[in-house]
Amino acid sequence: MKSAYQTLKEEAFEANMQIPVRGLAIYTWGNVSAFDKDRGVFAIKPSGVPYDTMKVDDIVVVDLDLKKVEGSMNPSSDTPTHAELYKRFENIGGITHTHSPHATAWAQACRSIPLLGTTHADHSANAVVCTPMISAEAVERAYEAETGILIADTFLNPEKVGAKDYWGNPLKPLVPSENPMVLVAGHGPFTWGANADKSVYNAAVLEEVARMAWITMQVNPEWKPLPDYVVNKHYQRKHGKNAYYGQK
Amino acid sequence: MKSAYQTLKEEAFEANMQIPVRGLAIYTWGNVSAFDKDRGVFAIKPSGVPYDTMKVDDIVVVDLDLKKVEGSMNPSSDTPTHAELYKRFENIGGITHTHSPHATAWAQACRSIPLLGTTHADHSANAVVCTPMISAEAVERAYEAETGILIADTFLNPEKVGAKDYWGNPLKPLVPSENPMVLVAGHGPFTWGANADKSVYNAAVLEEVARMAWITMQVNPEWKPLPDYVVNKHYQRKHGKNAYYGQK
Amino acid sequence: MKSAYQTLKEEAFEANMQIPVRGLAIYTWGNVSAFDKDRGVFAIKPSGVPYDTMKVDDIVVVDLDLKKVEGSMNPSSDTPTHAELYKRFENIGGITHTHSPHATAWAQACRSIPLLGTTHADHSANAVVCTPMISAEAVERAYEAETGILIADTFLNPEKVGAKDYWGNPLKPLVPSENPMVLVAGHGPFTWGANADKSVYNAAVLEEVARMAWITMQVNPEWKPLPDYVVNKHYQRKHGKNAYYGQK
Amino acid sequence: MKSAYQTLKEEAFEANMQIPVRGLAIYTWGNVSAFDKDRGVFAIKPSGVPYDTMKVDDIVVVDLDLKKVEGSMNPSSDTPTHAELYKRFENIGGITHTHSPHATAWAQACRSIPLLGTTHADHSANAVVCTPMISAEAVERAYEAETGILIADTFLNPEKVGAKDYWGNPLKPLVPSENPMVLVAGHGPFTWGANADKSVYNAAVLEEVARMAWITMQVNPEWKPLPDYVVNKHYQRKHGKNAYYGQK
Repeated sequence: MKSAYQTLKEEAFEANMQIPVRGLAIYTWGNVSAFDKDRGVFAIKPSGVPYDTMKVDDIVVVDLDLKKVEGSMNPSSDTPTHAELYKRFENIGGITHTHSPHATAWAQACRSIPLLGTTHADHSANAVVCTPMISAEAVERAYEAETGILIADTFLNPEKVGAKDYWGNPLKPLVPSENPMVLVAGHGPFTWGANADKSVYNAAVLEEVARMAWITMQVNPEWKPLPDYVVNKHYQRKHGKNAYYGQK
Repeated sequence: MKSAYQTLKEEAFEANMQIPVRGLAIYTWGNVSAFDKDRGVFAIKPSGVPYDTMKVDDIVVVDLDLKKVEGSMNPSSDTPTHAELYKRFENIGGITHTHSPHATAWAQACRSIPLLGTTHADHSANAVVCTPMISAEAVERAYEAETGILIADTFLNPEKVGAKDYWGNPLKPLVPSENPMVLVAGHGPFTWGANADKSVYNAAVLEEVARMAWITMQVNPEWKPLPDYVVNKHYQRKHGKNAYYGQK
Repeated sequence: MKSAYQTLKEEAFEANMQIPVRGLAIYTWGNVSAFDKDRGVFAIKPSGVPYDTMKVDDIVVVDLDLKKVEGSMNPSSDTPTHAELYKRFENIGGITHTHSPHATAWAQACRSIPLLGTTHADHSANAVVCTPMISAEAVERAYEAETGILIADTFLNPEKVGAKDYWGNPLKPLVPSENPMVLVAGHGPFTWGANADKSVYNAAVLEEVARMAWITMQVNPEWKPLPDYVVNKHYQRKHGKNAYYGQK
Repeated sequence: MKSAYQTLKEEAFEANMQIPVRGLAIYTWGNVSAFDKDRGVFAIKPSGVPYDTMKVDDIVVVDLDLKKVEGSMNPSSDTPTHAELYKRFENIGGITHTHSPHATAWAQACRSIPLLGTTHADHSANAVVCTPMISAEAVERAYEAETGILIADTFLNPEKVGAKDYWGNPLKPLVPSENPMVLVAGHGPFTWGANADKSVYNAAVLEEVARMAWITMQVNPEWKPLPDYVVNKHYQRKHGKNAYYGQK
């Protein structure tokens, strides 16, 4: 008998398989989930399963309270992080977590990635924000859920968690669906999108952006952010009301 | 019925497919065009189409006024940049734009790549110039066309746009057909050549040159440009009147 | 007639073949061994044999006194290093030595890799220690065996060999089975695990950790180690008594 | 009719094909030759031919006076460099020239690669020397032959050409067959060996050594060369009279 979640599981499976294909993590690392907002459930990678043996039926379906709805395996240990983001962020249908080397290095450096070029501006009109370091209390309380809450607060209530930009200035709130990438301090990247496939696309973009930003700063220690008028032009031509990139 | 532009479209298609093969961009990024000077048209990648599903028939043919001559898809959003370069540069038959990571990092750094070795000198006898940052007015007016005009002015009228070399000295005019690479500040590389295939070859060369230059400067912060007499020897033995590289 | 060591040799063979697959060494470099504690023997790569022609029957079986038990070829020249580690470290069943570029660079730099992020903490709750430089006397006496003794002393008797951490402070003893990676100063990485396969997994992890640490320090010269409470959470959720990562 | 040089041409062909396989150069760049000392001829890559279409019969055979002995194509433009090295260096049977990125970056930096670890010491007991910059007179006279003469002088008469080590001290003469790698200032690496295959092996080794040295120096700006007693142990266990690496 076919699962009622077959399509959602396949979407999650295909997106997870992009992680090794795009070189975003090795072995069992990383995970992607696909969200069905109407039914309030998401499909996610099982914990600790290698990509080269994973099957569609290994994908686990859980609801936003983390109750398992379908599947025989344990879901990713990062599942509570995904749940918190689906609860708090509007208009996202997929989430990806990787250990891609350059994005993870920036996260370990506890630094936001300044917006240095149009490759970045094509996907977000702001720096890729790094969260503050999670507190000992939050780790004690519920590490994975609190990671999701920290990400959400960094975007929606940056003042509350004391989030700063690259230069140490207070962050302003950001619209998650328009800024689909974050670095969790000391940990690594999470990205999201309208669906699972777009979230893993954003993970691959973030890895390129992180690599280019590193080299840019080495090539010119007096680098400057891209002027706002170029940022806006690039973001708007791809995502704005009058976007003219791509096919209709 | 066979298209009157079949050969041109195939040339553009084959050259575009070199972008993922050579690792010069991911997903849908980058684009190559092939120019038919006699007919005043060029064939270019459709906008936002992934390389792994693109077909020859997806290639779009436009004239230098950007009127579509053949094809059902929207051409690359960078099409006006290509058109301006075909109008302004003599003896070029193909143009490539990529987001290759090292060349893009130099562009984001707003730095020209000094001529440090014979790998570079085999393909150009000058630094790979970085344009000045495009102005807010130009972005407002016609961003993509103005990007082409900025590149052309950087080569042909560097004084007009205030183009500088690596050390901040005013640039001298450069012959485009002999210097087939440029970095657009804050954006990325454009390269060209006698045909589409040679333009993408130059894009791959530029990525190697950009990578080597970065590492060279790290290995020896007191690096020096290659002496002119070695530059000239290498450029001339491959491109001069008495060139003796390759087969006749 | 089937060898009494067939399974052990196959385990060693499969793990050795992961070295080129994971890009951890080129040509004949690197070696993995698989230990059978009950019989006091281990199976190891033959010396100087390229991975692409190696067969299971080329694997050599030796006892802890280095007496060959099975096989027609010479075992890896690093065999005495493996033997010393099997004699001195409890609860390890496989050892891997590679020349993976980033881990080797840290070893050449004679620097321990500080614990900068959760990718590292998922596999060890401490820095990846670099041994002191081996002494001239030890090289003279029995270079390869002494390399194993130096590694063992660095973990079990760090004061004896004057082992220091990244900041020059004296090292405290470490439990080898919980810290499965080491850098041998001026030489390269050795890793171990419950079996040969897990030892080569740890070699691949170490290469990623070494690469990320390098980039982290470049991106933020004022980097800080990951707080202990995050380190412990990550290590314990994967390896502690109440671990909840993976499938039961 | 079979060529009298069939075996030599095949040796050269197979070794040349290792250049793209090992990622040591793109397109047509780089070249390998195989030397038949008894007949005083060597087989070398044709000039400007891409690796993916090259055939055994495209390989050109020339004598040490550069007279073509067999083949319809033009030999590599670097052929005179190879000839000078075969005339001046004893006991070498193959030469490789690549544009591998890290080795080329060191050559562009005009810096010798200090001996920092055992990966390097396994293949040479000395730094990888960078030649002085070729003079304008030598370029004018006979650029490619003079490049070979400059390499030979750097090894055999370092005082004559003013060759220096990494720290600016005068170089001592080096035995070419025991130090199979050189960097030509501003240009790139040449390597050699007992035959063509071993020369391209040394080119791949040099690329790894160059990459590791760069990262080592970044990880620890106070890096030190490997102690002589470790260098000698590693070089001797692989190449000395009582070598015990590999199979007999």
